[in-house]
Amino acid sequence: MGHKKELKRIDLNSIENPNFLKDLNYKELGLLSQDITQYIIDQTSINGGHLSSNLGVVDATIALCRCFDFSKDKIIFDVGHQCYTYKVLTGRSLEHLRKSDGVSGFQKRGESPYDHFECGHSSTSISAASGMAMARDLNNEKYEIVAFIGDASISNGLALEGLNNLSNNKHKVIIVFNDNDMSITKPVGGLAKSFRALSNSMLYRRSKHAYQKLFKKTKFGRWNLKWMSAVKNWMKRHLVAINLFDNMGLAYYGPIDGHDIKEMEKAFLKAKKYEKSSVIHIKTIKGKGYKYSENDDSGIWHGVGSFDKETGKINTDKQTVTWSEIYSNAILESMSENENAVLIVPATATGSSLESVFEAFPTRCVDVGIAEEHALTFAGGLAVSNKHPIVSIYSTFLQRAFDELSHDIARMNLNATLVIDRSGLVGEDGNTHQGLYDESFLLSVPNTVVTMAARESETYGLMKESFNNHGLFAIRLPRDRVAFEHQKETLPFGKWKKELQGEKTAIVAVGPILLELKKLIEEKGKKVTLYNALYLKPMDEEVIANELVKYETIIIYDAYAIENGFSQALAEKLILLGYKGKVIVKAVPDVFVEHASIKEQLAQFKLLPEDILELL
Amino acid sequence: MGHKKELKRIDLNSIENPNFLKDLNYKELGLLSQDITQYIIDQTSINGGHLSSNLGVVDATIALCRCFDFSKDKIIFDVGHQCYTYKVLTGRSLEHLRKSDGVSGFQKRGESPYDHFECGHSSTSISAASGMAMARDLNNEKYEIVAFIGDASISNGLALEGLNNLSNNKHKVIIVFNDNDMSITKPVGGLAKSFRALSNSMLYRRSKHAYQKLFKKTKFGRWNLKWMSAVKNWMKRHLVAINLFDNMGLAYYGPIDGHDIKEMEKAFLKAKKYEKSSVIHIKTIKGKGYKYSENDDSGIWHGVGSFDKETGKINTDKQTVTWSEIYSNAILESMSENENAVLIVPATATGSSLESVFEAFPTRCVDVGIAEEHALTFAGGLAVSNKHPIVSIYSTFLQRAFDELSHDIARMNLNATLVIDRSGLVGEDGNTHQGLYDESFLLSVPNTVVTMAARESETYGLMKESFNNHGLFAIRLPRDRVAFEHQKETLPFGKWKKELQGEKTAIVAVGPILLELKKLIEEKGKKVTLYNALYLKPMDEEVIANELVKYETIIIYDAYAIENGFSQALAEKLILLGYKGKVIVKAVPDVFVEHASIKEQLAQFKLLPEDILELL
Repeated sequence: MGHKKELKRIDLNSIENPNFLKDLNYKELGLLSQDITQYIIDQTSINGGHLSSNLGVVDATIALCRCFDFSKDKIIFDVGHQCYTYKVLTGRSLEHLRKSDGVSGFQKRGESPYDHFECGHSSTSISAASGMAMARDLNNEKYEIVAFIGDASISNGLALEGLNNLSNNKHKVIIVFNDNDMSITKPVGGLAKSFRALSNSMLYRRSKHAYQKLFKKTKFGRWNLKWMSAVKNWMKRHLVAINLFDNMGLAYYGPIDGHDIKEMEKAFLKAKKYEKSSVIHIKTIKGKGYKYSENDDSGIWHGVGSFDKETGKINTDKQTVTWSEIYSNAILESMSENENAVLIVPATATGSSLESVFEAFPTRCVDVGIAEEHALTFAGGLAVSNKHPIVSIYSTFLQRAFDELSHDIARMNLNATLVIDRSGLVGEDGNTHQGLYDESFLLSVPNTVVTMAARESETYGLMKESFNNHGLFAIRLPRDRVAFEHQKETLPFGKWKKELQGEKTAIVAVGPILLELKKLIEEKGKKVTLYNALYLKPMDEEVIANELVKYETIIIYDAYAIENGFSQALAEKLILLGYKGKVIVKAVPDVFVEHASIKEQLAQFKLLPEDILELL
Repeated sequence: MGHKKELKRIDLNSIENPNFLKDLNYKELGLLSQDITQYIIDQTSINGGHLSSNLGVVDATIALCRCFDFSKDKIIFDVGHQCYTYKVLTGRSLEHLRKSDGVSGFQKRGESPYDHFECGHSSTSISAASGMAMARDLNNEKYEIVAFIGDASISNGLALEGLNNLSNNKHKVIIVFNDNDMSITKPVGGLAKSFRALSNSMLYRRSKHAYQKLFKKTKFGRWNLKWMSAVKNWMKRHLVAINLFDNMGLAYYGPIDGHDIKEMEKAFLKAKKYEKSSVIHIKTIKGKGYKYSENDDSGIWHGVGSFDKETGKINTDKQTVTWSEIYSNAILESMSENENAVLIVPATATGSSLESVFEAFPTRCVDVGIAEEHALTFAGGLAVSNKHPIVSIYSTFLQRAFDELSHDIARMNLNATLVIDRSGLVGEDGNTHQGLYDESFLLSVPNTVVTMAARESETYGLMKESFNNHGLFAIRLPRDRVAFEHQKETLPFGKWKKELQGEKTAIVAVGPILLELKKLIEEKGKKVTLYNALYLKPMDEEVIANELVKYETIIIYDAYAIENGFSQALAEKLILLGYKGKVIVKAVPDVFVEHASIKEQLAQFKLLPEDILELL
């Protein structure tokens, strides 16, 4: 053994809990950070996952786990998809990440005693932490509660409500504000601007004016004005950034380099000692340590499938495209044909492949940031002024705007198109992101049309029809891939399609999976009628009353929603029509569906086309 | 005619549009203000309505209607219930206010070309105005758009998202910020504090510290510090109040006396001239001009039924109490029995008669303000820490928190009680406030129990059961009155009650109205089985499978929800069980229900007990 002490290198597979961190020096921590970074790149390249956000917080997570003891202290990672380092440090392997036999891509209480709450949707952490803090104080217990939240998440209404309430109570929460100036994509809005410490805010223009008024009156005052500029510059640099939090009455430390473990530790320890709630503002580099994600401006490295880690090429199937891409084309066409069309997205332009629409129509496309409620009410304002808003949104996030789509659009019977991406089972993202519920709650809203295409050619027909004054027109699309056929169909409003003609049994099916079923039925030579229920609301009453009720058996097959969506509505219609035959419902049951591949999830509930075939 | 010009007094019934306002001098406007105030008191005392908020904005509405021409300019009254003066000035009579043959209590597009958008739920105005502004600018049109919003509404997440986005675009909106320091009740949270221009915010503590550091270094600097205190005091008085808006990059004027028409006009005209969005902060006195409402701290004059305008005594029926009062008692009992129970309300403590609970358990009751999303996620944080949150919320406002109740409570299968006030038809408040939808969307959420009591004695049983680890336990209660019987029942989980035994026909009914039906059936001597479906989810599977399916006819009677709630779920269950009899569904159809009395609304859809009797 030489005199120079060798750096201790940690075998990531040997980690059981974060206690070992205390024994490492900062150089060794640097090594650990590099190793974890590489491990995350390796595993994400195999399994897919949220890359950029996780690489950005390796160092911050190490610092947090050194300053807090999360076997008793609590931490909530807002959104939750940036917890890979935390998983590693708390003894969880990232192999099989997001697979049915591996860890979730989010914090998960069942997975580890180190996970204290579960996120998935954005901006919940401050409110949840406040509730935990109140519980702790009512119990007279002593431990810290940390909410770790990014700059895009904090501008959502829920987080702002949380901040507003936190500042009003005595229950201490430590907020780590992870500012990477680019959450999913570029954050939008005045708050983002102020975080960027903008210089020309009204505050200073007003201050200047006031100073001048105050001081120009005397010679001394005029001279004093010069001094003021020093103050003003100091204010420019520091006050704007801390404005929001100070305004709320919260103590603020920062900004701190989010890759300097030592500096962060100082701030965390200060916040621990402080008796009240505080905000620690850290600046991190999203995608740090991997050149492709570090240079990513568009957000494609936010959530990725598997990729070649050497070349940075994301693996895709060249034969097919995503449904998002199909709809991006259809939206582009609608925007061209209808000059009143305006596209609104809540931070999901990249996720829904809408970059080309934004490029083509910059003045008619708006990214409102993670602000789903605003997106829909804003759409209402446009619609009442005879614009035709198209809101592109993920099914799971539309849940945030249920009230607004009803109260601010449908209630006034305004015309708008809702393009609902990632409807149905979503696979690896798991139960926080399932797109199973929008169908059900949209069916309950008057003046609303709900549709789903089974093939590309139908998407253009639905988009076109959505501009024909039907009120709120929702089009659901799954998280899946499909052959790109470049074909278009015109579809009569409210009509189902008969895909196959049989005898005693009819299947009423929804969405692309019915084409697989059709193929299977044809292959097996089964005599069965298959309807493509393009319109879930209004239903094709004519077909139901004149054709459907004549079958001995009716199978309702909706693999893209829960049982009490379309299936239940159709079943009720049948019984009210006095139908006496047999009805079988095949839809997702009343449980929250855990992460696995979509195919595994379908198999779990016997919702694969072959499962339906077995019923025949 | 004498030399002294007589003041012109306006006959309110003669008003057709606001154009006459230009011809009045300020003294005459003062007279007009008094007359409108008295008219609002008179009409509200007869019809009920929102008194305090309307009296507070008489002067501001007059000033707005003088500075803008709302036949082309647009105005959105946030929440919308403070538009009575606007209705009067735009030629609408308040006689029969909120009755089926009178004007709505809110802005209503069908009612007048002067109404450009419709509110009802809080905090939509900024987002909607932004959408309207974008539409105007895309069309190259020229007119002003005003969002009139109160201090409690602005702290809701939707309004904050709207503000954040407004500051980021170039589409001009004028925000009139109506600050009465007491919206429904006292506003809560950091924003409210900052509006009150608090002196000791961190901003100044930090500023002070920084100044000292900066200046103590030199003799001149130390001397200069004295001067700074003048600046500091100026800042104290002005900056904190304008902080939020400035932070967002919005121009700010104010605060201005909201009862000084002349002063407000100056500010409105400035804002009109200014090319960008701005905020005009007016301070108003809620309930102004009526001593009872002016001195109201609790919010009982926010929304009232009819009252004696001389004595300020609100008319109530002594024989009965509201369901809110019944549940207030039940909640009080639960809080006493369960020391882990925590009550959370979003600004509706008075509306739901919960003052006594707040008094009895001050440390375990939280009013989060108009922040429904936060309320539910905060409850999730409490629940995950083994507290038992009781969230008391109006049905219509629960729509705002659909995502949170699912994602942050039910998904993790946490235990919580939801007490859903004003479920069902709500009568005079009309389509913005109908409590018809929660049942439907709650049924779609896994790990959720949905219940409704028919009589007071059952409420205690349901509240008690909600503490027995059933996950999210929802209890619906109607906006209605009931006899106070002081009786309690224990109810087995998931069980229905057989109220009457008949032969061929069974009625499965929900809620208090079934007792009226029961009485009618008994009076008429009909042979019919009547089930009290206390549990809407899970249903009483045993009764359904073993008893219900044996009847020739089943009537599902749910007057408190839309058809695709419980009715549809039960109908589907019957068809899946192979039921071959006749099913009749009596529930509210798929339309938005306009204002009228609850009885009129029930009659409209043939949902009165006598309508059901006719089916037998």
